[in-house]
Amino acid sequence: MTDKTTQYSAAGVDLEAADKVLDSIRGGVRATLNQNVLSGIGSYGGIVRLPKGMTNPVLVSSVDSVGTKVSIASAYGNFSTVGRDLVNHCVNDILCTGATPLLFVDYIAHSDFSPEETASAINGVAAACEDLDIPLVAGETAQLPGVYQAREFDLVGTVVGVLEEENLILGSKVAPEDVVIALPSNGIHTNGLSLARKVFSNYELDFVFPELGRPLGEELLAIHRCYLNELLPFLPSIHGLAHITGGGIWDNIPRILPEETCVTLEWGSWQVPPLFHLIQSLGDISFRELLHVFNMGIGMIVICDRKDADQIIRTIPGASLIGEVQTNTPGARQVTVRR
Amino acid sequence: MTDKTTQYSAAGVDLEAADKVLDSIRGGVRATLNQNVLSGIGSYGGIVRLPKGMTNPVLVSSVDSVGTKVSIASAYGNFSTVGRDLVNHCVNDILCTGATPLLFVDYIAHSDFSPEETASAINGVAAACEDLDIPLVAGETAQLPGVYQAREFDLVGTVVGVLEEENLILGSKVAPEDVVIALPSNGIHTNGLSLARKVFSNYELDFVFPELGRPLGEELLAIHRCYLNELLPFLPSIHGLAHITGGGIWDNIPRILPEETCVTLEWGSWQVPPLFHLIQSLGDISFRELLHVFNMGIGMIVICDRKDADQIIRTIPGASLIGEVQTNTPGARQVTVRR
Repeated sequence: MTDKTTQYSAAGVDLEAADKVLDSIRGGVRATLNQNVLSGIGSYGGIVRLPKGMTNPVLVSSVDSVGTKVSIASAYGNFSTVGRDLVNHCVNDILCTGATPLLFVDYIAHSDFSPEETASAINGVAAACEDLDIPLVAGETAQLPGVYQAREFDLVGTVVGVLEEENLILGSKVAPEDVVIALPSNGIHTNGLSLARKVFSNYELDFVFPELGRPLGEELLAIHRCYLNELLPFLPSIHGLAHITGGGIWDNIPRILPEETCVTLEWGSWQVPPLFHLIQSLGDISFRELLHVFNMGIGMIVICDRKDADQIIRTIPGASLIGEVQTNTPGARQVTVRR
Repeated sequence: MTDKTTQYSAAGVDLEAADKVLDSIRGGVRATLNQNVLSGIGSYGGIVRLPKGMTNPVLVSSVDSVGTKVSIASAYGNFSTVGRDLVNHCVNDILCTGATPLLFVDYIAHSDFSPEETASAINGVAAACEDLDIPLVAGETAQLPGVYQAREFDLVGTVVGVLEEENLILGSKVAPEDVVIALPSNGIHTNGLSLARKVFSNYELDFVFPELGRPLGEELLAIHRCYLNELLPFLPSIHGLAHITGGGIWDNIPRILPEETCVTLEWGSWQVPPLFHLIQSLGDISFRELLHVFNMGIGMIVICDRKDADQIIRTIPGASLIGEVQTNTPGARQVTVRR
């Protein structure tokens, strides 16, 4: 900047690169902004109007990253998909309460990425937001020399949704004789990537297992499916929604069960994708652990009255009836898989 | 879990440690939840009621980390303060639009932290939220082996605030003859840490420079000051607020200036803390660069009508009149410091 300067770039922070990133994402981010957004890029906060005419609006927010899926993205040299994982994951989370998204914000940090790589990741966030009509109203790109390992990064997102308080889905309507429907996952989604990387550590990411039919990297980067648009018409009749994330069905289904209920699922009633069979055989992993770490083909669990199930199963591709809610002792909230 | 298992912990993810963290933060997080929060810990989304009786509510959101201040926290072995930095920084950002916080969510990721260290960082977030009466409604702790360097972590937060649309402070009221007030920073805040670390790279963090009078680590970890409560009574009469973060006064003041205005500040009209003089002399950094990378003693810029300035300066400790707004050619938005 002048002759007598310790350039900030000498400390590992490249402000020019940050400007380049901004130039490369401006179009994608702008495309997400709708008429309810009152702020532009670079303001101190993303400003969004609430929908008009709500009586008792409640906000629902969730924050997440995509776990070590970022490491696979970097190793495979494809930065464009993890942003979609992030948005879809967060949106699915708040969907479990019945909320639809109002805004999204993202954060990306790294130590040594090129502006093109950083922009590719952020543009993935923006693309998913555009697809789902969610304004991406704020974001932060941080270059943190010394914090992240070489060629590694993290990608964090927060979604904020809104709904009328009376429409909240809190699981309190879940009752014995309700049925359990599985909506299929689109692969490993964003959970269990660390274990998967360990299991596949002897294989290159471009290796093609015959049972997968595509490179391992592509298989592991398959985008987390978003269930928003498919479930939207059914929200009024749904009693409970469990996004199958870390902890699998064992930990996630109990999150929405009333105290005195339990759930019994039938093994074989849903399709387990070949990837998980492969992980099981290569990794010598127990049945119980598999269902704890991975989604095993179930991306979202829907609990509803039996009379409403047919319509959901007929409408949502791949949906299947996999079990039912039963009475149990208070505090049980147990999940059993019958083999 | 069973006899035939590749434990998830063998892949570097310690689920038991995650449970320990949760146990250690539950109390602190619960203390932030007020009667408007409808969700408990562990639900799929943080659920918060909007304030009753708003006519045209708009939400304002901002996401940030604390930069490489996390590295200093880790090296100095004090994880308790960066969470406060994070909350205060984010709250100051949305305060620039006039918004007051409604909810906060946090994300922490690391590769090898103990549950105690992780919990200490999160409890710092919770403590700041409790002080400011902001519910901490969602959070995520991620152990990402291989992504973060040993003994490093990142801490990311998102704040969502709310206000009536008509009360938005967008800088449009800023006009020639308005005055510029500086609110003092509490040290380096969360910007320029990478350069500061480079400048001080030959000193241990427990070294005490006479002009600082306390260990370097303590000085650099001084908590980012929050201006919410001090500025709240004055928001109706304020024309513009610029939080002095990355880019310093050069980049931040123009964010709130109308096209045809510029700002002239008087060097010497605010106090520059000893830390910055020390950085300047050790690092041989130019005047312009210093004001670009560091806050140089100014945490927040307030622009208002001259008649309203006295009250603000008399009420907020350390506030001082440092310059004025002038007319310039369209598109100028220039900041000048007269020495």
